[in-house]
Amino acid sequence: MLASIMNRPSYGDGAPIAAIATPLAESALSVVRAGGPGSVALAAKAFSRPEVLAAAPASSAVHGWLVGPGGERIDEVVAVVFRAPRSFTGEDTVEFMCHGGVATAKAALRALVGAGFREALPGEFSFRSFVNGKMDLTRAESIMELVGAKTDEARTRAVGRLAGALEREINEAKDLLVRALTATEILLDYSEDDGVGEDEAGILPDREAVEAAAVRLEALAAGYRVERLYRDGATVAVAGRPNAGKSSLFNRLVKEERSIVSDVPGTTRDWIEAWISIEGIPVRLVDTAGLRHADDPVERVGVERSRAMLDGADLTLYVVDGTTGLHPEDAAFLARHRKEALLPVWNKIDAGAFAPAEGFVGVSAETGDGVGELAAAIARSIAGPKTEAAGDSARGAGIASERQKGLVDRAIAAVGEALRRTDAGLALDLVAPELREAVDALGEITGEVSTEDILENMFGRFCVGK
Amino acid sequence: MLASIMNRPSYGDGAPIAAIATPLAESALSVVRAGGPGSVALAAKAFSRPEVLAAAPASSAVHGWLVGPGGERIDEVVAVVFRAPRSFTGEDTVEFMCHGGVATAKAALRALVGAGFREALPGEFSFRSFVNGKMDLTRAESIMELVGAKTDEARTRAVGRLAGALEREINEAKDLLVRALTATEILLDYSEDDGVGEDEAGILPDREAVEAAAVRLEALAAGYRVERLYRDGATVAVAGRPNAGKSSLFNRLVKEERSIVSDVPGTTRDWIEAWISIEGIPVRLVDTAGLRHADDPVERVGVERSRAMLDGADLTLYVVDGTTGLHPEDAAFLARHRKEALLPVWNKIDAGAFAPAEGFVGVSAETGDGVGELAAAIARSIAGPKTEAAGDSARGAGIASERQKGLVDRAIAAVGEALRRTDAGLALDLVAPELREAVDALGEITGEVSTEDILENMFGRFCVGK
Repeated sequence: MLASIMNRPSYGDGAPIAAIATPLAESALSVVRAGGPGSVALAAKAFSRPEVLAAAPASSAVHGWLVGPGGERIDEVVAVVFRAPRSFTGEDTVEFMCHGGVATAKAALRALVGAGFREALPGEFSFRSFVNGKMDLTRAESIMELVGAKTDEARTRAVGRLAGALEREINEAKDLLVRALTATEILLDYSEDDGVGEDEAGILPDREAVEAAAVRLEALAAGYRVERLYRDGATVAVAGRPNAGKSSLFNRLVKEERSIVSDVPGTTRDWIEAWISIEGIPVRLVDTAGLRHADDPVERVGVERSRAMLDGADLTLYVVDGTTGLHPEDAAFLARHRKEALLPVWNKIDAGAFAPAEGFVGVSAETGDGVGELAAAIARSIAGPKTEAAGDSARGAGIASERQKGLVDRAIAAVGEALRRTDAGLALDLVAPELREAVDALGEITGEVSTEDILENMFGRFCVGK
Repeated sequence: MLASIMNRPSYGDGAPIAAIATPLAESALSVVRAGGPGSVALAAKAFSRPEVLAAAPASSAVHGWLVGPGGERIDEVVAVVFRAPRSFTGEDTVEFMCHGGVATAKAALRALVGAGFREALPGEFSFRSFVNGKMDLTRAESIMELVGAKTDEARTRAVGRLAGALEREINEAKDLLVRALTATEILLDYSEDDGVGEDEAGILPDREAVEAAAVRLEALAAGYRVERLYRDGATVAVAGRPNAGKSSLFNRLVKEERSIVSDVPGTTRDWIEAWISIEGIPVRLVDTAGLRHADDPVERVGVERSRAMLDGADLTLYVVDGTTGLHPEDAAFLARHRKEALLPVWNKIDAGAFAPAEGFVGVSAETGDGVGELAAAIARSIAGPKTEAAGDSARGAGIASERQKGLVDRAIAAVGEALRRTDAGLALDLVAPELREAVDALGEITGEVSTEDILENMFGRFCVGK
């Protein structure tokens, strides 16, 4: 199947490829990566000391200049040479550590393209790494996760998968099913030969292994909600009546909880938002202070967009002014919204006017009192109580992509069907295909079984240069 | 002088330092750089294969994991080891090629800080490179230029300086002055000993060398305007009456001239702008289409800011609608503004209504006719006719920073004064100090002569990790 991809001029055409592997922005260094069969000799064409680079031993660094076709100096660089199979892709590779900056990185890439490299497609280096057996698909996906990780918790989970925790978990579940499937197929072969085995209907060999696999797979599926939460984060809106202290609470949370992307909240015309980290969960905190009745038609559009955002939020912190107490409008809002998606907050407790009403978290945005408790309550509301499955996946053994989730669900359905057919007394030759289906689905998660579409779709979402 | 800096706990305290050297954004790779005496052994503490890293030969790459204090895996990396003096800084260095992404790069840096590295100050690696004699100050400054180069032309000029073209040019001028200064001092010593030399007043030994140096220094100073233009770029505003086709012309120029930063123009409430490259000059093109009389006070502030921007532009393309011809308001605008900062454009020539008025460049933003000629006219207007000095500096031998310009000016003034004093018949002991002053100023450009303040001020403007 991979062979057919190898013939195409895109992924896997085997050509020497090059790409800028670092972000295009001002910085100290940029890295331009070049790889593929013959890539060291090809890169030497764009290097000031071609013989030295071409003869460089595996895993060595060579100092020199990237040069253009006329020998003009492009940049003073260090070329790090990797020789097959000891490289990220398993192919010969040269990584040029160039000076930073947009123009330099682009000029370096141009010099390599001038020497004969093709610009790499997104994820093409990782694709080659997979094709050359350097990593399975769960590890490849974890790289993408690592790159996009918003919090350290998300990064840690991705690193566990990069180290192979999920690959092992999937393979262990698959091995249990393979054991049962093999026993079943031996029995079926035996039955055909000898005309016996009708008695075996309703009796699945190694049923315990199948049931153990089912338990493991269900734990994986159940942990996905939490994995997705750490990966994608949750939207938490701050709402309330004018002067309840929405913006103060927003600012206090941004200040006290580690702000993920920057300390400067992004602004739009309609609302203000910032990404913060609450117990490692990326939280997009949205201040809807701008949300108000408006007569201006332009502003009215903004208010409508704000309301839609509020409806789509995973959680709304509804702020009540503790110095005036619960207003009828507050009560109406709280009654109107789903309880699970609401966290009522009693602000200005430092004023000591009214005690927080039942079910409210008391805070003072002014002094910071109660904000730690509020953060914990936010984490509980959006992540739910910590389960054993979540603990497992914290070590990187959880599934982390829609693709993986879909395949685990497929395996669970097939295993369930195999057990149901067995219980219904159906013959083993009607049970075996279900076990086979489950084994295939799990093999697809790691990439043992794969199709062109799956691979192109998966690697196409990678960064260029990866 | 440098020794005094070495005692401070900041620049040059000699501690092992580490920094993220690539931009903090999603990408395939990030690089975290660690250096200083003992840095390989120190880095090994945060590495999964400490013995292998600690024993790695010079200029070699080692595969492994960055690990935290408890041995927890941080990221799978390649560590490239450089041994003193064969590294960027001249000190032992380890560059960790990590996976990309903000969280990963930060976690990698944390692991190194945990192992005992101090976070590097901006430019601290370059500072060490200079202190250890790996490069002079003109080369160090060229790195900063390279990183910020907006166009390929700017990058090429910086690369020439990185390769030492300016260092050589300065040293050649300085050598001429040193020759004359040495001859002068020998003569002064001789006069003191023998009571002769009063006759030498008004006769400068090796005067031709001094005059040759003056010519070279003046060419450098004259070329600075052009160097600065390529480095910083120019602001070109598009103005004109409503419906003259300002936005169409803006869009056409952004499309036809290579857009530098991105294809998407940045927007503000007050105007739209985009950086484009015109003959290698970075041009910040500004569309003032939003500039109009406004009754709304908020909008009026915007209009005032737009007008201030227009006044500050290096060049204004004033667009006239060629289908209606010159309107009295057009004539008034053109009469009111400085001719040198105006480039009148006759738009919509494809309609063939009126022939362009005298002094106008005829274009059609609609079809693109004449836009190439307009770009050439813009380049001529902002860069002036190409001079020999500009040609020289295109090979990287021009001065490129305010610091260098100030020192060249100081050298020119001192040389001029030396010649004036000679011509006024003053004694050589009043001429020699001026030559010495010029030599010192040139020595300061390359860093032969330097002060703590100069160095900290210069390297402090570098990127972290550089």
